[in-house]
Amino acid sequence: MAKITAAILIIGNEILSGRTQDLNVQYIASGLARRGIYLEEVRIVPDIKERIIEAVKSLSASYTYLLTTGGIGPTHDDITSDAIAEAFGVSVEKNQEAYKRIEEYYHTLGREVNTASAKMAYIPSGASLIDNSQTNAPGFIIGNVYVMAGIPKILQVMFDWLLHQLDSGPAIESRQINVEIGESKLAAEFEQLQNKYPIIEMGSYPFIHEGRHATTLVLRSENKAILDNAFEDLKAMTHKFPLIS
Amino acid sequence: MAKITAAILIIGNEILSGRTQDLNVQYIASGLARRGIYLEEVRIVPDIKERIIEAVKSLSASYTYLLTTGGIGPTHDDITSDAIAEAFGVSVEKNQEAYKRIEEYYHTLGREVNTASAKMAYIPSGASLIDNSQTNAPGFIIGNVYVMAGIPKILQVMFDWLLHQLDSGPAIESRQINVEIGESKLAAEFEQLQNKYPIIEMGSYPFIHEGRHATTLVLRSENKAILDNAFEDLKAMTHKFPLIS
Repeated sequence: MAKITAAILIIGNEILSGRTQDLNVQYIASGLARRGIYLEEVRIVPDIKERIIEAVKSLSASYTYLLTTGGIGPTHDDITSDAIAEAFGVSVEKNQEAYKRIEEYYHTLGREVNTASAKMAYIPSGASLIDNSQTNAPGFIIGNVYVMAGIPKILQVMFDWLLHQLDSGPAIESRQINVEIGESKLAAEFEQLQNKYPIIEMGSYPFIHEGRHATTLVLRSENKAILDNAFEDLKAMTHKFPLIS
Repeated sequence: MAKITAAILIIGNEILSGRTQDLNVQYIASGLARRGIYLEEVRIVPDIKERIIEAVKSLSASYTYLLTTGGIGPTHDDITSDAIAEAFGVSVEKNQEAYKRIEEYYHTLGREVNTASAKMAYIPSGASLIDNSQTNAPGFIIGNVYVMAGIPKILQVMFDWLLHQLDSGPAIESRQINVEIGESKLAAEFEQLQNKYPIIEMGSYPFIHEGRHATTLVLRSENKAILDNAFEDLKAMTHKFPLIS
């Protein structure tokens, strides 16, 4: 079976200015790994139409799925729908089902839909909707591009809803061990382990534990049997060093 | 004066797997803004040499500066130096000054430099060093590419050291106001404000405050006089709504 891959495109001046800490990449990345989808690239671009179009074209052509976050709200800086329509060469049109959902949400607030809110119902022609159980205004799907909100709470419900509709592969599992020793002292043996198990992705991440050098060694693969064998070898390799739980 | 721009390239399987929350983008982005450097793109790619080379070539050609994080440690998964040398068509060689610094650090630990640690002194031919006041092993500069560690504490001292060596422009300042009203109710007036001050970057970011809809309106520019005028207009526009401090 072909490897299923994904990229994330974050549309967000607020991330590039340093104003906002992105929290969406880790949430999406963890979910994709559980479903056996390999996240192979993330890009963050400004709220500039040409930049969004260029990134959408490039990333949607390179990976099985492209997930975007940000820029689908009611204000003038929300230009994602327009940009994605242009990337696909279609127009933006009012989606009646999206409008109905927005209207229902506003009614629960005791309000009518104004021009700005109605803008959220305008999506690329032919797109289907992504449910939003937080505030109703939907995301959308066109081709292999999944367009979601940037606000973490809304992003999360949208992503949870769509994740089970994506093709999946064997879950990508990981095993890790934290040892109280600097990574350079483990490097030679860890490289031998990598050479013994070339299909396992192996990473070494140093940290400081109670003032002393320590290392997290991570093994990652969709092949659970080989992963478990490699992890047994890793434990044998590191058994003489203090473990950190 | 031409706008000074930058991109960040994060080299890190641990971010793409969801294991690690990136903290470096926000730190770098905030510092660049203070120095009037426009961060216009971020990419995250895996620890795969061809992917790093491709991203380095593309981003270094498109922006004034490219800052990279990750992959310069002593283990087999640290391939950034090799990849960047290849992107510049030069070889990797032992940098005597880098080696000396690594040796000094190990001596303070009462240890000798082993083969793995020595690897950190091998950098692209012709590169100059970036100081690391945390653990000595330096980053490096080649062309317009600034290569730093991925561990936030080390990234931060490296970035602080190099930031004042980059060309700078007028600081990009921001003004913001938090009002207790949904963003769609402000959208029309906020768009008028944008049209009145086209050079000001304006963003609207909804949030929930004590169970009620609220919005942060952000104005951003290097032109402080016009920014202040626009902010006065923004305050007049929102004065009838409760402020959130």
